[in-house]
Amino acid sequence: MDWLDAVHWDDAGLVPAIAQDAVSGDVLMVAWMNREALQQTASSGEAVYWSRSRGKLWHKGEESGHLQRVREVRLDCDGDVILLKVEQVGGIACHTGRVRCFFRRLEQGDWVETDPVLKDPTDIYKR
Amino acid sequence: MDWLDAVHWDDAGLVPAIAQDAVSGDVLMVAWMNREALQQTASSGEAVYWSRSRGKLWHKGEESGHLQRVREVRLDCDGDVILLKVEQVGGIACHTGRVRCFFRRLEQGDWVETDPVLKDPTDIYKR
Repeated sequence: MDWLDAVHWDDAGLVPAIAQDAVSGDVLMVAWMNREALQQTASSGEAVYWSRSRGKLWHKGEESGHLQRVREVRLDCDGDVILLKVEQVGGIACHTGRVRCFFRRLEQGDWVETDPVLKDPTDIYKR
Repeated sequence: MDWLDAVHWDDAGLVPAIAQDAVSGDVLMVAWMNREALQQTASSGEAVYWSRSRGKLWHKGEESGHLQRVREVRLDCDGDVILLKVEQVGGIACHTGRVRCFFRRLEQGDWVETDPVLKDPTDIYKR
């Protein structure tokens, strides 16, 4: 059996993929993959997702330079979530210019931003 | 604004929630939350999810005893994924009796089980 068949793709042919920093252990972001994205991720060693908003494959970092070098690909018990351990090039995973997308923490009934913007998004995406 | 309104609930009123071990940093599992699950999680300090298969709130560990004590609740940039940092009671998050649900790793085009079963599921769920 093809290893891609062990993945339980949803009705849209997608599964969520979590990217975790291989060094810090921080959960960086969650994006989506279709079959081709996962196959390209495995063969190239760099994270490739499916952009739902743009409706096409998204080689993470293709615009920003913030590639993710994939050290490990994992699948959960139900086969419906992928976990990547990655080296985050540039140390910025989030399109807001922060290390990670999970930069808000719940504190006393309010979301508090805990992570600084390391690079202005207008500088990240002007290439 | 209610902090729960910052979450972008999907058409079914749900968002995925990642549970990460606060000590080891391991990503343990992904489950779903509705508004009430997240509210109960925040107020009780223990992870409460929405079981899509059973169609009801699921206080994680209610059967197995493997509760998750929540140290931190985070929200991503798009507001559509929750990240919990938890202390995993019993050291077992997965219904298969393993530490975590992500016990399969891709190696040379095959999923390889890397994590042992710590407790037989029939023993976990006989309570």
